[in-house]
Amino acid sequence: MPRLIKLKEPMPAMGKSKRGSNIYRVAAEIMCHKGFGATSMNDIAEAAGLTKAGIYHYIRGKEDLLFEIMKYAMDNVEHDVIAPAMEAEDAEERLRTIVERHTRSVIEGVGAITIVLDEMTALTPAHRRVITARKRAYFDFIRQTLQQLAVEGKLRSVNPTTAAFSLLGMILWISRWYRRDGKITPQDALNDYLELAMNAVLKESRVSKRSQRSAQA
Amino acid sequence: MPRLIKLKEPMPAMGKSKRGSNIYRVAAEIMCHKGFGATSMNDIAEAAGLTKAGIYHYIRGKEDLLFEIMKYAMDNVEHDVIAPAMEAEDAEERLRTIVERHTRSVIEGVGAITIVLDEMTALTPAHRRVITARKRAYFDFIRQTLQQLAVEGKLRSVNPTTAAFSLLGMILWISRWYRRDGKITPQDALNDYLELAMNAVLKESRVSKRSQRSAQA
Repeated sequence: MPRLIKLKEPMPAMGKSKRGSNIYRVAAEIMCHKGFGATSMNDIAEAAGLTKAGIYHYIRGKEDLLFEIMKYAMDNVEHDVIAPAMEAEDAEERLRTIVERHTRSVIEGVGAITIVLDEMTALTPAHRRVITARKRAYFDFIRQTLQQLAVEGKLRSVNPTTAAFSLLGMILWISRWYRRDGKITPQDALNDYLELAMNAVLKESRVSKRSQRSAQA
Repeated sequence: MPRLIKLKEPMPAMGKSKRGSNIYRVAAEIMCHKGFGATSMNDIAEAAGLTKAGIYHYIRGKEDLLFEIMKYAMDNVEHDVIAPAMEAEDAEERLRTIVERHTRSVIEGVGAITIVLDEMTALTPAHRRVITARKRAYFDFIRQTLQQLAVEGKLRSVNPTTAAFSLLGMILWISRWYRRDGKITPQDALNDYLELAMNAVLKESRVSKRSQRSAQA
């Protein structure tokens, strides 16, 4: 089982940070809209406002671009979720940090980038191994946190593996439905996800003050 | 908002039931393995042990096949999940039936068929409208159940829309990780998902006997 990867600095995308991450966003959105197979480099260049020559200045091809987007997505998870969570020594606090920060990043970020993380079959085997290892390291981090909570008697009587995948499913699915311009504000969505996720896995005595209040009501 | 669709009899797949649903399973698995865009009718024929002429006896083409698989998946949801759940007058019992039966169908069924339900961009606009309406009707059924639980004071203080998508995310994600030949038995996975999902959305006083026992422990 791979060890938790070493955290890097926030990613300067291909050394051309802003421009790079903008292309990632646009490319991910068009890949989700048209499907990865049906998206051409021309489509991406057009959406990004670049000539075909211009886009090849940034990216070698579609598979390479997908790999870059996935690395960028995992950089963000490692920087925005794992790094702050690792600072929490208390397992419950660590879990709350994971849920809160990952949920926030999906709500506030680009849903399409989360969705293309599923396009594993389009990667070369070598690239797939890299992304799989990084996803696995994040999964193991969540599961280890839940295992510690089990030792402390705080986890419900469920398998930490099943619980970890449940949390991931809940959070990653946000990318499929949530619209920032819809009826549910980002803050309300975040609060609800924290309430739902923490109560899913933790015994009631461990839940947030907010839940205790609603339980008393 | 579309009304709940009328339930049909269990689907006789293209009038050639067994053979049809076997092609769906094989096709869904190869689409997940290679990616929808990269899968050819030849690949599907080969995997299903049919000649190219033979497969065109069953299906007009790849888009049509995808649409048939999605209709088959939604037929299963309507028959195996919605119909039995509608028989439960009590909202909590209805929710439990939804979670238990949908989870079981993903655990025991073909994960690939659940995964290709996400390939909405590959459908023609007319087919996409059909599948979207059926997914929406299922979603509304879950949300209405949660709204009734809110009226009864049993739902945690969360938006029923957010809660419904959380449950769907949890359950649909099973298709991405669960292996029946792995370490976690189907029965254990099912029990854990019931525990996680019901506790995510319901106040503690409403949880299953199993959770009450573990809370007392």
